[in-house]
Amino acid sequence: MHQRSAHRSLLVIGSVALDDIDGPFGFHKDLLGGSASFIARAASYFTKNVSIVAVIGDDFPQKHVDELTELGVDTRGIERQKGETFHWVGRYAPDLATRETLDTKLGVFGSFAPKLGAHQKDAQLVLLGNIDPALQLDVLRQVHAPTLVAADTMNLWINIKRADLEAMIAKIHTIMLNDEEARLLAEEHNLRRAAAKILKMGPTSVIIKRGDAGALLFHGGGVFAAPAMPLTDVKDPTGAGDSFAGGLMGYLAYAGDLSPKTIRTAMIMGSVMGSFAVEQFSVDGLRNLTATKIQHRFDELVELVQFDQVRL
Amino acid sequence: MHQRSAHRSLLVIGSVALDDIDGPFGFHKDLLGGSASFIARAASYFTKNVSIVAVIGDDFPQKHVDELTELGVDTRGIERQKGETFHWVGRYAPDLATRETLDTKLGVFGSFAPKLGAHQKDAQLVLLGNIDPALQLDVLRQVHAPTLVAADTMNLWINIKRADLEAMIAKIHTIMLNDEEARLLAEEHNLRRAAAKILKMGPTSVIIKRGDAGALLFHGGGVFAAPAMPLTDVKDPTGAGDSFAGGLMGYLAYAGDLSPKTIRTAMIMGSVMGSFAVEQFSVDGLRNLTATKIQHRFDELVELVQFDQVRL
Repeated sequence: MHQRSAHRSLLVIGSVALDDIDGPFGFHKDLLGGSASFIARAASYFTKNVSIVAVIGDDFPQKHVDELTELGVDTRGIERQKGETFHWVGRYAPDLATRETLDTKLGVFGSFAPKLGAHQKDAQLVLLGNIDPALQLDVLRQVHAPTLVAADTMNLWINIKRADLEAMIAKIHTIMLNDEEARLLAEEHNLRRAAAKILKMGPTSVIIKRGDAGALLFHGGGVFAAPAMPLTDVKDPTGAGDSFAGGLMGYLAYAGDLSPKTIRTAMIMGSVMGSFAVEQFSVDGLRNLTATKIQHRFDELVELVQFDQVRL
Repeated sequence: MHQRSAHRSLLVIGSVALDDIDGPFGFHKDLLGGSASFIARAASYFTKNVSIVAVIGDDFPQKHVDELTELGVDTRGIERQKGETFHWVGRYAPDLATRETLDTKLGVFGSFAPKLGAHQKDAQLVLLGNIDPALQLDVLRQVHAPTLVAADTMNLWINIKRADLEAMIAKIHTIMLNDEEARLLAEEHNLRRAAAKILKMGPTSVIIKRGDAGALLFHGGGVFAAPAMPLTDVKDPTGAGDSFAGGLMGYLAYAGDLSPKTIRTAMIMGSVMGSFAVEQFSVDGLRNLTATKIQHRFDELVELVQFDQVRL
């Protein structure tokens, strides 16, 4: 992956967290987590034009920030405040198919007010990671004229902040959510109908993440299904959706255009990065990747769904 | 779809049933059901070289048999016996995602002993629909030298007839099951590992059906993911897997070869026929199809997963 000056700038807003995770592979404490941690790292493999806005407490290991900086990410917008870092405690079922939240300590994240640097307000691509939609709206008021704004969300905000969430969705281009969240937001079980209802809320595209069933993109050009790689080893699904989003937006920044063809390829790059993320704990699956490894997984996905066009 | 003399012969063994189905679209009584009903009808659109072995009671409407005959299916092996037809009563959840069996009346199916006609023993392709694996083994003892035998099964047989089931699987080429059944059979949650364990039981390929997440083919040549069409209208998932199997085997009979490329195309034809089946009750979604309609849905699936091969 050569670096091109044409790369668009990608601004990432999200959480940087410490996670305690219990599950079939044991209990792991103080893992690096948070949406922005996965997004920025996944995107960094496609472009060096990534900057973050996030908040950490005084307990957060500086090495995690330094690592992102070494990957070429602009971390000046990661603000260290007095207090504890956002901390999530969760437990996965033995089959890793479901998880429950055992505890959430907001810490410094409870008073997070994203403040963009002057260099960030001109970002061309903006990814609003899964945080309170009121904060996502705050960010939207600060950016000048982005060509693409995408946002992730979750069931919590659909349940307790629907008005803010709908206001946010009306202002962005792409909303990403998982299948259950899409059903909850649209109050419609059928995914195709749910996507149609969400499109009526204002965005130009809806991406529905379905874990190991892949992801669906609904937009004016129809529907695209990005496959998920069937993996032999899955250790920790945490951050899969964020890594997907980071790969997708990172590739769009790299490609420098937003054509339907490029967006399809970007969905596949998202699937590639999500597949790496779940093979290890925390962001470990996103460490030490190379263009060769990413290309290889991409080619595996090409092969996975390849079939001939036939005429009956 | 022109008829070719090279079409291989397809023998279908399975149930022919009457179903009572309750669900979000109301209660429907005495619907035509059973694995062979869906399989034969789906396959009939690809080849006229399909014959059935099944049993019906004296209450079974002759019109259903006549309709299959009119589609070109050899129905001489549908034996009418004194007694009631196999009758399934089920109820779907409001979202159609799950169903429960309320009653199963075996009727004449309880003493079903598949007996192949002389013309059926030389079948080149054999599809053993989901019935007692002991009966599937009976059929295997009667066929001479089929080039491909595929079988479907269900959790019931895994739970109560595992020995017969494993003996059957060891003798066939392709086993088809859904994801939960694959996990149950292999005692392994990860689908890729589960498929690897099932391949060790003897078959050369394993097809895992995942409903609206598509189907996975695992074989020596690796893995292939057939997408499912995201549908706006889903009325009745009954028979989706059987229609998939019928489309797949029907296309293989039509194509006349068993190359990996042809098998991938056949998986897509399976997905096409499954998608038609769920849009209506009973076999209604498989009525009045044409080569043009089938080609159109096939082309939609091509478009659904189409993306460019890129080099980073």
